[in-house]
Amino acid sequence: MEHDGFVVRPVGRVESPLTDRAGAPRQGDEGAPPAWIVFEERVVPALADLHEGDQILLLTWLHQADRDVLAVHPRGDVTRPETGVFATRAPDRPNPIGLHRAEIVEVDGRRVLVDGLEAVHGTPILDVKPVIGAVDER
Amino acid sequence: MEHDGFVVRPVGRVESPLTDRAGAPRQGDEGAPPAWIVFEERVVPALADLHEGDQILLLTWLHQADRDVLAVHPRGDVTRPETGVFATRAPDRPNPIGLHRAEIVEVDGRRVLVDGLEAVHGTPILDVKPVIGAVDER
Repeated sequence: MEHDGFVVRPVGRVESPLTDRAGAPRQGDEGAPPAWIVFEERVVPALADLHEGDQILLLTWLHQADRDVLAVHPRGDVTRPETGVFATRAPDRPNPIGLHRAEIVEVDGRRVLVDGLEAVHGTPILDVKPVIGAVDER
Repeated sequence: MEHDGFVVRPVGRVESPLTDRAGAPRQGDEGAPPAWIVFEERVVPALADLHEGDQILLLTWLHQADRDVLAVHPRGDVTRPETGVFATRAPDRPNPIGLHRAEIVEVDGRRVLVDGLEAVHGTPILDVKPVIGAVDER
């Protein structure tokens, strides 16, 4: 596998009222609803220092994406010229990893509630990272 | 594979004077050198709209990471309390995906030069995304 690729394993899943990709907002700050992230039991120690009010980045696996797409009309708008996917946030791309910024609203054991997330119900979570501030605050 | 994980395939590799993880800066804005990203021929159409001056996010596979680590001393400083990895930017984590912000300095065919990158030589690139601005500029 080392030469062909690497295996990512979900560390959790999204629980959200959004069930349909077509109806989902395109970004978290465009009216996305709150969502729970339910983490796997095996990664609970990694969650220990996540707290209400923290600004985080969620990395997801956009499991409904088409990985063969290399160019798209941005935001699905056919009046906009076709654009290489590395210059867009389109979910269809060779490695469909979603990047979402959110604020933690509540932590309840291995469940974390965030304020807004455009990923649909069942979306696998790959990683969580803190938003980092200025160099001298690290 | 669908139940256990997903396979990411590198779309390119880093060419950098940094060869040693221990000697690498911890973030791109902490003195990291310019680096070339050399993309695979198969993804060239995805690069079409990357230009000098663009602010981008690079997603990498931190291939030297230890995926069994769930808590670390931040920045390797043992005077700081051990912290769950989801509240840190440590490379050791269950899915070692690196997230790096950089500016494009030059585009030369399927090679893209960025202003500063803390990833070591040979690091696989998984994805490139634009930094997105305010909602009304998308």
